[in-house]
Amino acid sequence: MALLVQKYGGTSVGSVERIEAVADRVLKHKQQGDDIVVAVSAMSGETNRLIELAKSIQETPDSREMDVLLSTGEQVTIALLSMALMKRGLSAVSYTGSQIRIKTDSAHGKARIEEIDTTRMRADLDAGRVVVVAGFQGADEQGNITTLGRGGSDTTGVALAAALTADECQIYTDVDGVYTTDPRVVDTARRLDKITFEEMLEMASLGSKVLQIRSVEFAGKYQVPLRVLSSFKDGEGTLITTEENDTMEQPAVSGIAFTRDEAKLTLKGVPDIPGVASKILGPISDANIEVDMIVQNVSADGTTDFTFTVHRNDHDKALGILKSIEKELGARDTLTDARIAKVSIVGVGMRSHAGVASTMFKALAEDAINIQLISTSEIKVSVIIDEKYMELAVRALHSAFKLNVSASGVSEV
Amino acid sequence: MALLVQKYGGTSVGSVERIEAVADRVLKHKQQGDDIVVAVSAMSGETNRLIELAKSIQETPDSREMDVLLSTGEQVTIALLSMALMKRGLSAVSYTGSQIRIKTDSAHGKARIEEIDTTRMRADLDAGRVVVVAGFQGADEQGNITTLGRGGSDTTGVALAAALTADECQIYTDVDGVYTTDPRVVDTARRLDKITFEEMLEMASLGSKVLQIRSVEFAGKYQVPLRVLSSFKDGEGTLITTEENDTMEQPAVSGIAFTRDEAKLTLKGVPDIPGVASKILGPISDANIEVDMIVQNVSADGTTDFTFTVHRNDHDKALGILKSIEKELGARDTLTDARIAKVSIVGVGMRSHAGVASTMFKALAEDAINIQLISTSEIKVSVIIDEKYMELAVRALHSAFKLNVSASGVSEV
Repeated sequence: MALLVQKYGGTSVGSVERIEAVADRVLKHKQQGDDIVVAVSAMSGETNRLIELAKSIQETPDSREMDVLLSTGEQVTIALLSMALMKRGLSAVSYTGSQIRIKTDSAHGKARIEEIDTTRMRADLDAGRVVVVAGFQGADEQGNITTLGRGGSDTTGVALAAALTADECQIYTDVDGVYTTDPRVVDTARRLDKITFEEMLEMASLGSKVLQIRSVEFAGKYQVPLRVLSSFKDGEGTLITTEENDTMEQPAVSGIAFTRDEAKLTLKGVPDIPGVASKILGPISDANIEVDMIVQNVSADGTTDFTFTVHRNDHDKALGILKSIEKELGARDTLTDARIAKVSIVGVGMRSHAGVASTMFKALAEDAINIQLISTSEIKVSVIIDEKYMELAVRALHSAFKLNVSASGVSEV
Repeated sequence: MALLVQKYGGTSVGSVERIEAVADRVLKHKQQGDDIVVAVSAMSGETNRLIELAKSIQETPDSREMDVLLSTGEQVTIALLSMALMKRGLSAVSYTGSQIRIKTDSAHGKARIEEIDTTRMRADLDAGRVVVVAGFQGADEQGNITTLGRGGSDTTGVALAAALTADECQIYTDVDGVYTTDPRVVDTARRLDKITFEEMLEMASLGSKVLQIRSVEFAGKYQVPLRVLSSFKDGEGTLITTEENDTMEQPAVSGIAFTRDEAKLTLKGVPDIPGVASKILGPISDANIEVDMIVQNVSADGTTDFTFTVHRNDHDKALGILKSIEKELGARDTLTDARIAKVSIVGVGMRSHAGVASTMFKALAEDAINIQLISTSEIKVSVIIDEKYMELAVRALHSAFKLNVSASGVSEV
């Protein structure tokens, strides 16, 4: 008998029929003797509907009230799913983030979970109930409703699994696992049976969109085995674990991630002196804008160009901030480009393989794709290119790293 | 500077435009120096949409989960209204029933308010904030979300006004006050400037639909001055107070109420012995079915017919109960009729005027309307008739009691 936390995303609960299908799946697991806690998202489309409503009233909706508004989405789902479970003769009970005491900080719209009180859930599980929890939301110390930001339902699932020391956190989504890259871009993309947290972190943060990055961080930190599965078809999905797969030779690159969600900002000709970087990024961070890549190269004339990327939604805000500090910094100009894409190769095997980066750059050069920025970590290499070459680059790299066939020619089961 | 609690119903917040109009009205009152607490309903149509969703999953939705579901309706409204207020430069904060600690009992779907913690609201009002509270909902001792039943937002408004000892509770709705009867039925129906709680109670419970009965009970009990106003046009509305209007001669009848919401059930030929009534109504009450009229007449052969009315929605349930106890009671048969209407004349002046009932019966007889049941209280006389005669009866009575002109020929201002 296992304790499973299952998380179902927006498309998995997108209609009454889908909710019924989720209830069927939960029933199957209950019949196998598992204890189940379910975390759910808002029905697909609902969050966008609510955002539209808010924006039709306030251009930049108040963040506290936005959380009050958006949290209703999951609240609808937990009630409907609980009803569907009861209809199947199961005992079920729903909880909002506030009710189950998912305590978060007060950063509305991007709150972080601080603590989860498991008393009530444990009592429910002991009584044989399925516990249905609203994902994506919590409440701060003062009882204000908070949300974890979009995709935050994954984080809820993992946090619940960690708090309950569940045997597995299963993330049901509209894909049947983690692929070497997006199959919509490369039709020979292959599902991975296993992937490490580190790799998944790079894949997720780089836009693989399967899992929300913070949920993977969380899962890695608390060693929660995480499994990505399809809620539309049966299958084993992809297991995300701490164990590196050593039963077969580790391929150098596990997958290709990419995203169009970023924008690039460059301050031209800032003085090449200590403290400049923090003078630039301080105000950006104060405005709660997350920065992804940061690139600075030395320059000959005592000035340098400082480039960083942010989420495209934050482009205008970031540009406004740079414009306001440009003069004070002594910069020559601010240039921005939102028509960019980031493409990355990811793999723990990279650590022990030389020449991975050069294989990447060679493959891009062969298709005449110009590289605008480069950033590396131990297990990934990312480049920024013109967005119109994105698909081409992904296909070229997928093929260059032979991702369409299994490592050592062994088919994965 | 007055402390006002304003309640806006579903049609008053039925669209973004309507919410903006409510915000304009609140702004006007704030500019006049009033402190404002607003209680709101779900946007019109939303509650029905949610009920449909639930019923498409569970024929009789679980009542706890139904409350979790329905309470999202008002939660959407409080967020949107708060945003609209902020857009106008006002400081505003929203609270769900749970957050503001509207403590209720655990009767899901028809919970009663037990206590309201005003600490947080007082602090907000002192800080100049408009407090926006979700109507219709609360939470029980264990933090389970409860709803007060449909129309319960009025009750929330009055309960807030009572807890805060507000100067007035203003109920904004789609009518501009309480009328002598429904103007859609009688075009000469006249708005009343004032009405007593007692009269309003009879009018509301009898189907005038302007105010929910429990809100009036509440207001009367805590002496909260209650005003019904239109959220669509300016005007003084109707003030509901404890003071009987003695500046002009009190008319015998203040208004004509009517409803089609009831069904009639009769147990034929039950033994006319002590304890029978409680044997019939005990199981009905245990099933949480509210009974309205109860009529029993002595019978000659040692048996009697026992008749009562319930809400039409409860007809099938009540019939099932009667059928199951029919034999044990020794009744001959159970007859029911859902095609009935109740028409009532209401007025505190009735107490000192003889002949009011006979005027009523005479007026109905002149139009050949047969009376099936009669029930009276100190300030009203109700009759049950065939529903097809309802409008005819209302018009006949409105005219018979000269309600289209003011008492003593004095026009009301």
